[in-house]
Amino acid sequence: MTPWMWRRLAQTALEEDVGFGDLTTDATVPPGQTGSLALVAREPLVVAGLPVVPAVYEALDPAVRVDLLVADGTRLGRGDVLARVRGPARALLTGERVTLNVLQWLSGIATATRAVVDAVAEWDVDVLDTRKTRPGWRAFEKYAVRVGGGKNHRFGLDHAVLIKDNHIAAAGGVAEAIRRARRAAGPTVFVEVEVDNLEQLEEALTAGPDGVLLDNMDPATLQEAVRRAQGRVWTEASGGIRPESVRDVARTGVNAISLGWLTHSAPAVDIGADWEAP
Amino acid sequence: MTPWMWRRLAQTALEEDVGFGDLTTDATVPPGQTGSLALVAREPLVVAGLPVVPAVYEALDPAVRVDLLVADGTRLGRGDVLARVRGPARALLTGERVTLNVLQWLSGIATATRAVVDAVAEWDVDVLDTRKTRPGWRAFEKYAVRVGGGKNHRFGLDHAVLIKDNHIAAAGGVAEAIRRARRAAGPTVFVEVEVDNLEQLEEALTAGPDGVLLDNMDPATLQEAVRRAQGRVWTEASGGIRPESVRDVARTGVNAISLGWLTHSAPAVDIGADWEAP
Amino acid sequence: MTPWMWRRLAQTALEEDVGFGDLTTDATVPPGQTGSLALVAREPLVVAGLPVVPAVYEALDPAVRVDLLVADGTRLGRGDVLARVRGPARALLTGERVTLNVLQWLSGIATATRAVVDAVAEWDVDVLDTRKTRPGWRAFEKYAVRVGGGKNHRFGLDHAVLIKDNHIAAAGGVAEAIRRARRAAGPTVFVEVEVDNLEQLEEALTAGPDGVLLDNMDPATLQEAVRRAQGRVWTEASGGIRPESVRDVARTGVNAISLGWLTHSAPAVDIGADWEAP
Amino acid sequence: MTPWMWRRLAQTALEEDVGFGDLTTDATVPPGQTGSLALVAREPLVVAGLPVVPAVYEALDPAVRVDLLVADGTRLGRGDVLARVRGPARALLTGERVTLNVLQWLSGIATATRAVVDAVAEWDVDVLDTRKTRPGWRAFEKYAVRVGGGKNHRFGLDHAVLIKDNHIAAAGGVAEAIRRARRAAGPTVFVEVEVDNLEQLEEALTAGPDGVLLDNMDPATLQEAVRRAQGRVWTEASGGIRPESVRDVARTGVNAISLGWLTHSAPAVDIGADWEAP
Amino acid sequence: MTPWMWRRLAQTALEEDVGFGDLTTDATVPPGQTGSLALVAREPLVVAGLPVVPAVYEALDPAVRVDLLVADGTRLGRGDVLARVRGPARALLTGERVTLNVLQWLSGIATATRAVVDAVAEWDVDVLDTRKTRPGWRAFEKYAVRVGGGKNHRFGLDHAVLIKDNHIAAAGGVAEAIRRARRAAGPTVFVEVEVDNLEQLEEALTAGPDGVLLDNMDPATLQEAVRRAQGRVWTEASGGIRPESVRDVARTGVNAISLGWLTHSAPAVDIGADWEAP
Amino acid sequence: MTPWMWRRLAQTALEEDVGFGDLTTDATVPPGQTGSLALVAREPLVVAGLPVVPAVYEALDPAVRVDLLVADGTRLGRGDVLARVRGPARALLTGERVTLNVLQWLSGIATATRAVVDAVAEWDVDVLDTRKTRPGWRAFEKYAVRVGGGKNHRFGLDHAVLIKDNHIAAAGGVAEAIRRARRAAGPTVFVEVEVDNLEQLEEALTAGPDGVLLDNMDPATLQEAVRRAQGRVWTEASGGIRPESVRDVARTGVNAISLGWLTHSAPAVDIGADWEAP
Repeated sequence: MTPWMWRRLAQTALEEDVGFGDLTTDATVPPGQTGSLALVAREPLVVAGLPVVPAVYEALDPAVRVDLLVADGTRLGRGDVLARVRGPARALLTGERVTLNVLQWLSGIATATRAVVDAVAEWDVDVLDTRKTRPGWRAFEKYAVRVGGGKNHRFGLDHAVLIKDNHIAAAGGVAEAIRRARRAAGPTVFVEVEVDNLEQLEEALTAGPDGVLLDNMDPATLQEAVRRAQGRVWTEASGGIRPESVRDVARTGVNAISLGWLTHSAPAVDIGADWEAP
Repeated sequence: MTPWMWRRLAQTALEEDVGFGDLTTDATVPPGQTGSLALVAREPLVVAGLPVVPAVYEALDPAVRVDLLVADGTRLGRGDVLARVRGPARALLTGERVTLNVLQWLSGIATATRAVVDAVAEWDVDVLDTRKTRPGWRAFEKYAVRVGGGKNHRFGLDHAVLIKDNHIAAAGGVAEAIRRARRAAGPTVFVEVEVDNLEQLEEALTAGPDGVLLDNMDPATLQEAVRRAQGRVWTEASGGIRPESVRDVARTGVNAISLGWLTHSAPAVDIGADWEAP
Repeated sequence: MTPWMWRRLAQTALEEDVGFGDLTTDATVPPGQTGSLALVAREPLVVAGLPVVPAVYEALDPAVRVDLLVADGTRLGRGDVLARVRGPARALLTGERVTLNVLQWLSGIATATRAVVDAVAEWDVDVLDTRKTRPGWRAFEKYAVRVGGGKNHRFGLDHAVLIKDNHIAAAGGVAEAIRRARRAAGPTVFVEVEVDNLEQLEEALTAGPDGVLLDNMDPATLQEAVRRAQGRVWTEASGGIRPESVRDVARTGVNAISLGWLTHSAPAVDIGADWEAP
Repeated sequence: MTPWMWRRLAQTALEEDVGFGDLTTDATVPPGQTGSLALVAREPLVVAGLPVVPAVYEALDPAVRVDLLVADGTRLGRGDVLARVRGPARALLTGERVTLNVLQWLSGIATATRAVVDAVAEWDVDVLDTRKTRPGWRAFEKYAVRVGGGKNHRFGLDHAVLIKDNHIAAAGGVAEAIRRARRAAGPTVFVEVEVDNLEQLEEALTAGPDGVLLDNMDPATLQEAVRRAQGRVWTEASGGIRPESVRDVARTGVNAISLGWLTHSAPAVDIGADWEAP
Repeated sequence: MTPWMWRRLAQTALEEDVGFGDLTTDATVPPGQTGSLALVAREPLVVAGLPVVPAVYEALDPAVRVDLLVADGTRLGRGDVLARVRGPARALLTGERVTLNVLQWLSGIATATRAVVDAVAEWDVDVLDTRKTRPGWRAFEKYAVRVGGGKNHRFGLDHAVLIKDNHIAAAGGVAEAIRRARRAAGPTVFVEVEVDNLEQLEEALTAGPDGVLLDNMDPATLQEAVRRAQGRVWTEASGGIRPESVRDVARTGVNAISLGWLTHSAPAVDIGADWEAP
Repeated sequence: MTPWMWRRLAQTALEEDVGFGDLTTDATVPPGQTGSLALVAREPLVVAGLPVVPAVYEALDPAVRVDLLVADGTRLGRGDVLARVRGPARALLTGERVTLNVLQWLSGIATATRAVVDAVAEWDVDVLDTRKTRPGWRAFEKYAVRVGGGKNHRFGLDHAVLIKDNHIAAAGGVAEAIRRARRAAGPTVFVEVEVDNLEQLEEALTAGPDGVLLDNMDPATLQEAVRRAQGRVWTEASGGIRPESVRDVARTGVNAISLGWLTHSAPAVDIGADWEAP
């Protein structure tokens, strides 16, 4: 995560929210007034997104001083303070909502990921995200997954090959699809194939992919699939997996479990800003 | 919602996902191949975001034909088809994930909003959103709220005045804060004040705001607050309200209920793409 | 007005003017040379736009030191110095024209607004701008109006409802138009209706808008319109009003007078840059 | 003037004005309704900016049909129709103000330029603009000058050399400044020098520039300057020249007269949009 | 390569070249005139970049008709026609240079790559590019390599791991560096290590990377390195390899050869535009 | 060359290369580690592009300290150090490739230009570039030409008039074409005409252009052309001129020689980064 990513996130959010100006703050708070905001966890959470705090306030006023009291990935309890922001009161208030929005969103993903990772800690399995993310902010949502202890599946369509049913149909079979992918994509590219049942799996294994995505299989089928693939290819379970079903999947022995839920449906966590006398 | 908003959303999502190119599709699907995708509801939902479908496919290939079978706001059951997309198979497959991501996200908000609106249908109360939205996509998330039957609170800091505790403290009192806001903000600007208890409410009412936000009050206090405000000022209940508590709030007689939950935590709904023989 | 607005204004102007490079300065002025520029009022004026001065020079060379000697809104006489800029001579000269262009333009609007505001000072009436501004720079032109003592009408089409003849025709009458606006637009949105004569005014008043725009009425009609509206609705006079006719309008008792002239036709004021021995 | 310039102008203006949506039109006008707008001159003028009309409406709705009835540069009388726009009523109304703003602004410049050009028609002299233009829109303001019969001075700092007092001081004399400019700037670059009096003129002439800018000289001095320069160098009069003084300047025999006033202070002309039954 | 990539390339080039307008064409060619341009190879070449032709002319004038007579990857002889462009003469001439610039540049890379690929055709070895490309146009330069028969190494720093000396030093050894990379980077990421000699190679092999980059080795050392690595890991030769030395490298049996020269130094090929009577 | 040009170049290159993150560096190098990189010439060269070094590293980490040891235009031998970069090891390694890419590319152009300029040093002739540059980076490629001792021909289509065959055909003759150009283009614009033979030259000379481009003439014809043009018009030789033929052209007495080769085909020079113990 580079500095300009956080600056672009902060700038986009600020321009959208402030528009022609913060009518309330500009009207009610005198320019010279100073103050302090404490950003506080209102429930237990794993924090993610703290670099947005300085990015927001640098854009608003270089006179604001930001102290980050913890680092991304820290588990916090209700009432713990994440950061303290001091300086011109106008900037503090104008940037407050935008800052909290980012923290609540990314910490929500990190907190949910951490819970899933902890739930499967007894097995040697990676918890992965998917490409089911919000437009333009995938780097952040995938970062929050890493902060929560998960690992990232491919970032985009140019990062790895993932051959699905439709690609197979179009290519005239699994072997041909994999051969085409190998020929076109360059030697550093990972080639994975999605299979829906054991027959497809057997067919795929003959073609030597780097990995297989075992899609929407019940635990028994999954276990059999893992047994057949073991030692030959990397295995990933995917398809409608939720936090409550993840342990059943993990115990089948798959190498990785991917959950779209981590990024498209994890609820925000509650983080607030308390005004402190300057 | 103007055409360029949907185009920007689609373009942002496509550029992020496609990057240097769709390795899988370009390798496995021949250029001349055609096909058809049906976008299908995998669970009951209120659909929102359909204009993104043509926006995505126009950007990928003008030869793709998009048929929208329903309109935003329609309630669908499991298996209902939202849209059908026909044409060059490469474009269909490259745009699939991006299209579904937007539909699942916005329909999730619309579906959740509709449930809340239905839950309070017996009272004369507006269900409102907040500014707790993802950076840059507020227009879309607030649009989804409208699609679900909700109404929009202010779009940004330049659209209306909402005076909070910190503003009041800075201004030296409610009356002074409102006076300053009226003086600065232009005659078309709505002036609302947030109050935490009945004493603050009384003080605020003397200053003649256009509205009061009753923050985090229990139902009994809320009811008393509404009684005192009635006929004098517009009232809004806010603060940690969830779908399960919304009826208790509605029956107090407030004019509006605002829920950050609608935009920051409504889960995605499941929408898939089925390949159909061309 | 946030820092990034001034930076974008300065950057846009600089990139346009400098292009591939300042041929004259780069050729004739050695890199090491330093100097000082005084920005001077060449005629009486109300200054607006001073934050552009540091924004221009930060973009050109952080070694330039900018001292603003007055603040936006100050009335200056011929020969008064607005600001002094010291440092590398190349940067000083390259940024000179761009800086003056912004100051002359915005101070022109502020100066014209101040003259109108002063002309109607004996009545309790707001002087308002309109949406008749240059593409992309509305925030600045409306800021200059505020600097000159005016107030802002709505910033854009999403900030307030203003129903005109054509909207009324399309909606099938004033009452229906207002009802539709109320239903769609959210509780914080101001609803105003434009009327051309007393019959339209009466019809509009029955529908309970927040304000009426009295368009292109002669003083006598305007006075009668204000009499009928008083105590029921906020009134605004508009339509071809010029500085020379503004007092005749003000004495009718309207709450506000809006003039497109302030932004689309106020002439620039003359501001120059004098070189001072370093 | 390329197509993308007009598209960018239109898009910038629309995004700024529409923001999150046109509340009034979306609320009061049904989607299916159609209509027609006639763009009408409300006073005599020279029209400039017509290409913005299709650019605005293509961005809003491709179903809108635009008919331009005249071409940029045409002289129109009060009541003459510039263009007719037909189609979806929502798009017509949403784009109306933005379209008129551009037409009024650019036609104002063209009309003012035409008046000055006509005033000096009996002499062989060019009427020129300057770099005193609004940020980012110089191409349009200079285009309007051409439409009005004027010619363009340099577009920006990279287009020609114009050596002013400060450059001369920095370079240690006129001859040295010109020599430096010739050495650095490439053979296709025009080299002009600003002089304030006859002594400076003589000094400049010895160095062989391509042109001299005679700054702020009274008519008598100007005439003498032109006499001395004639046959040796191109001459331009500049500095505070207004429409009312332009004939006195023209009769001195200068090759060109430049007026910042054309772009920074020409008032807008009045153009309106009349609704016509569809 | 998606449509928007070619559009952005064309738009960037046009805006830079046209600036405020094409002075020559606008002055000398009447608006109504039409014509035809044939794009012709002036030397033998492999063509790359043809999609830029319609992208340039759509931006200039939709009335221009573009006929591509060959496809990217075709080998052409001197005098062969690549494409024919017909329509408004102004657009044809304004877009000519920009179009040729892109074709000459990308065809230069494709032509050079094809020569290298042909030179090593008798061995089973991939010809690869590197990240040594021009800012912002990597996708195009790597596309031209593919057009010429080469394959792409990683697109960017986020696509694969390539551990170099400095990374190894920082990590405290090869094994630790690879372990860290595996832990952090996600299961689909290729992990390659650069080694300078046989000792480093042995050390690297114990850690099980996916590939080794054999840097700047003479043919004899390279051959020995390949012998030791064979069957255990994918091998790539790199470092200062030029077309004239590529056969000596290929016969060592490496799996791939990468050449920065393909993108940073391949000379442009000569392509011209011949005017044809309309 | 302004600061924002270098920042945009650096930012574009970094965003393209880093994408979602530098997988290798982030995985293998701990955050706290520091180091030093020396940028070293691996062959004799004329350096160009040094301002990109601070621009890259400011974008990555303000804690990096950049020391430029030479200035653009310096001739360096193999092993000479251009710059030293110290600070956080992660930033040093992430920015290395991008920095070298720019330096190798621009120094390649400067080195090639310098060789050509030196080759013709005994004649009074300018070495010029053309518009044959990469999209969006013309300012940099033309800057590198200046750094190498060359001069710039026009920057773009809006900077000067260059009438070619096709323009002449369209205008109905040379004299008419020049007259049209003079009438339209403003007094500061240079008007040049391309001629292919002596007859065209004679025709052109009667019309009084500022310069003639003598296209693709053999030395004898060129010499005769120069003889005829001398004292009447500035002369430029162009068309397929390479470093090896430049002296034959120079001795004909032309005022300038332009070579597209300088920017479209000059090979990169080799510059490396050596890690130094911190």
